[in-house]
Amino acid sequence: MDVTWSLVLDLLGTFFFAISGCLLAARRGFDIVGSLLLGSLTGLGGGVLRDLIIGVTPTAFVQPVYLIPPLAAALLVYFLVHHVQRFPRTLLVFDAGGLALFCITGAVTALNAGLNPVAAAVLGVTTGVGGGLLRDVVANRDPQLFNPRDIYAVPAMLGATLITALWYLGLFNVVSELCVAAVVFTLRVLSLHYGWRIPHAAGSWHTPRPDGQ
Amino acid sequence: MDVTWSLVLDLLGTFFFAISGCLLAARRGFDIVGSLLLGSLTGLGGGVLRDLIIGVTPTAFVQPVYLIPPLAAALLVYFLVHHVQRFPRTLLVFDAGGLALFCITGAVTALNAGLNPVAAAVLGVTTGVGGGLLRDVVANRDPQLFNPRDIYAVPAMLGATLITALWYLGLFNVVSELCVAAVVFTLRVLSLHYGWRIPHAAGSWHTPRPDGQ
Amino acid sequence: MDVTWSLVLDLLGTFFFAISGCLLAARRGFDIVGSLLLGSLTGLGGGVLRDLIIGVTPTAFVQPVYLIPPLAAALLVYFLVHHVQRFPRTLLVFDAGGLALFCITGAVTALNAGLNPVAAAVLGVTTGVGGGLLRDVVANRDPQLFNPRDIYAVPAMLGATLITALWYLGLFNVVSELCVAAVVFTLRVLSLHYGWRIPHAAGSWHTPRPDGQ
Repeated sequence: MDVTWSLVLDLLGTFFFAISGCLLAARRGFDIVGSLLLGSLTGLGGGVLRDLIIGVTPTAFVQPVYLIPPLAAALLVYFLVHHVQRFPRTLLVFDAGGLALFCITGAVTALNAGLNPVAAAVLGVTTGVGGGLLRDVVANRDPQLFNPRDIYAVPAMLGATLITALWYLGLFNVVSELCVAAVVFTLRVLSLHYGWRIPHAAGSWHTPRPDGQ
Repeated sequence: MDVTWSLVLDLLGTFFFAISGCLLAARRGFDIVGSLLLGSLTGLGGGVLRDLIIGVTPTAFVQPVYLIPPLAAALLVYFLVHHVQRFPRTLLVFDAGGLALFCITGAVTALNAGLNPVAAAVLGVTTGVGGGLLRDVVANRDPQLFNPRDIYAVPAMLGATLITALWYLGLFNVVSELCVAAVVFTLRVLSLHYGWRIPHAAGSWHTPRPDGQ
Repeated sequence: MDVTWSLVLDLLGTFFFAISGCLLAARRGFDIVGSLLLGSLTGLGGGVLRDLIIGVTPTAFVQPVYLIPPLAAALLVYFLVHHVQRFPRTLLVFDAGGLALFCITGAVTALNAGLNPVAAAVLGVTTGVGGGLLRDVVANRDPQLFNPRDIYAVPAMLGATLITALWYLGLFNVVSELCVAAVVFTLRVLSLHYGWRIPHAAGSWHTPRPDGQ
């Protein structure tokens, strides 16, 4: 597959996640530098984690072009957030875009590095959910990943598994990649809209305590 | 030492920590996938950290067998948590089991990788407390590690130091390993039962502010 | 540049950050071991992160001398915190000292490892803010890094950029290094004293919700 397309999709995913980080920074009243940093962590965190696990120098520290999406995101949010605030789910929609692209690029990077298919799918999920998890953890709030009112990891698991299967079937190219990304994104957004749920961790016998320590 | 035994103890530690993660997920009302992910992070997090520091590809991403303990833990908690809820300290007892095994496997992995004895002991402690710390951090609660109402890191420090000493004395084998694990586990559980404490960070002159920012 | 000086400045930065971690532990009522661990994480976390990204075994796990600053910090806070409590900003001043030294040692380590100048500056910032971010995240509080009531990352950005420029201009030595550290430290402390601010993430149109989720 063309290296340029991989880079474009990775940068796009970085941009989507960075926007979600900058929007959270705006909501929490952080300043413009805090926005840039939270956007960078969200956009680049999943990929850095992926590269550390594979054992290569993180691309974000090798190719300065990776710093452009977070910079653009911080500027866009600074100048436009009075518009996007009208759509309360904007953050989650951009987050879904990042999730859709990163679960794929994570799996593909792992396959290119020679990891086994199971590890590739797991690393795809890790890359997909990693940036958003880091964003929520450093912003000191309950991670979106664990929110039981919709599904977050399931679309990423499906996407990473699908792309790994396509790779082994020899059907991996930029078109199939975009199709899988569209499926993941659509599933995630529909789950937000319809509030799709899956069974609770403790089965049906349990009444959770929301403050449970 | 037999590689099979090392693997069995590492998988058992992964399972214990994974159970603690899934139980926390159940208490917090996460869904079954959130339970699997929190269990995986708790069970595999300490070992991934250990392997990243040593500079090898994390075993969890090389050997798919490492995914079985978190899967088993999520299923067990899903089907059985209405029983275990009767024992409020179940989470902490499983956490203690993981701590006891991981402070040992962490130190042994470091010694096998050629790190100096001090670094091996420190990496044993890091591996032992890492998974539980990640669990509490992503679940957005005060880490058990820093709870001053009992002792958590001290047993791990003792276990990692003991196993490093036994290694250099040529007395390291699966029997001595299990003995050290039993000592660590017992110390931790007794400290929970009797509320053992050690002096506060600020000596005796200080009244802590529980909300201190 | 003399390796000994680099080591001294790195150990000094570790000590400053470790003190900030131990002071937070004291405020939160952690015990002496929790203080040692939070001090270690704060003092060593940024450097471990830096070394993992560069791809070398973290110095903290190679050179046991790195464990002395956190040990000294935990003991000092234990015996002296009834004095320092009188100065509520002590934690932030020590944190500023760590920030000033680590944004420099991070950039220099990256330049020595052959990273490009942009990556070196970014890694300098990452190293500088990393330890304090980890401290605040595991202590489950809003990170100082994102506090909009003063500036935190800007001095580190300036310092990492300056030192990278001096390196390429052939003007890098221990004197210029100490000058840059003094500039970073002074800027940070003045921003605390005068409450310097920069524009909010969302421009001027936005009223942040402090509890914004």
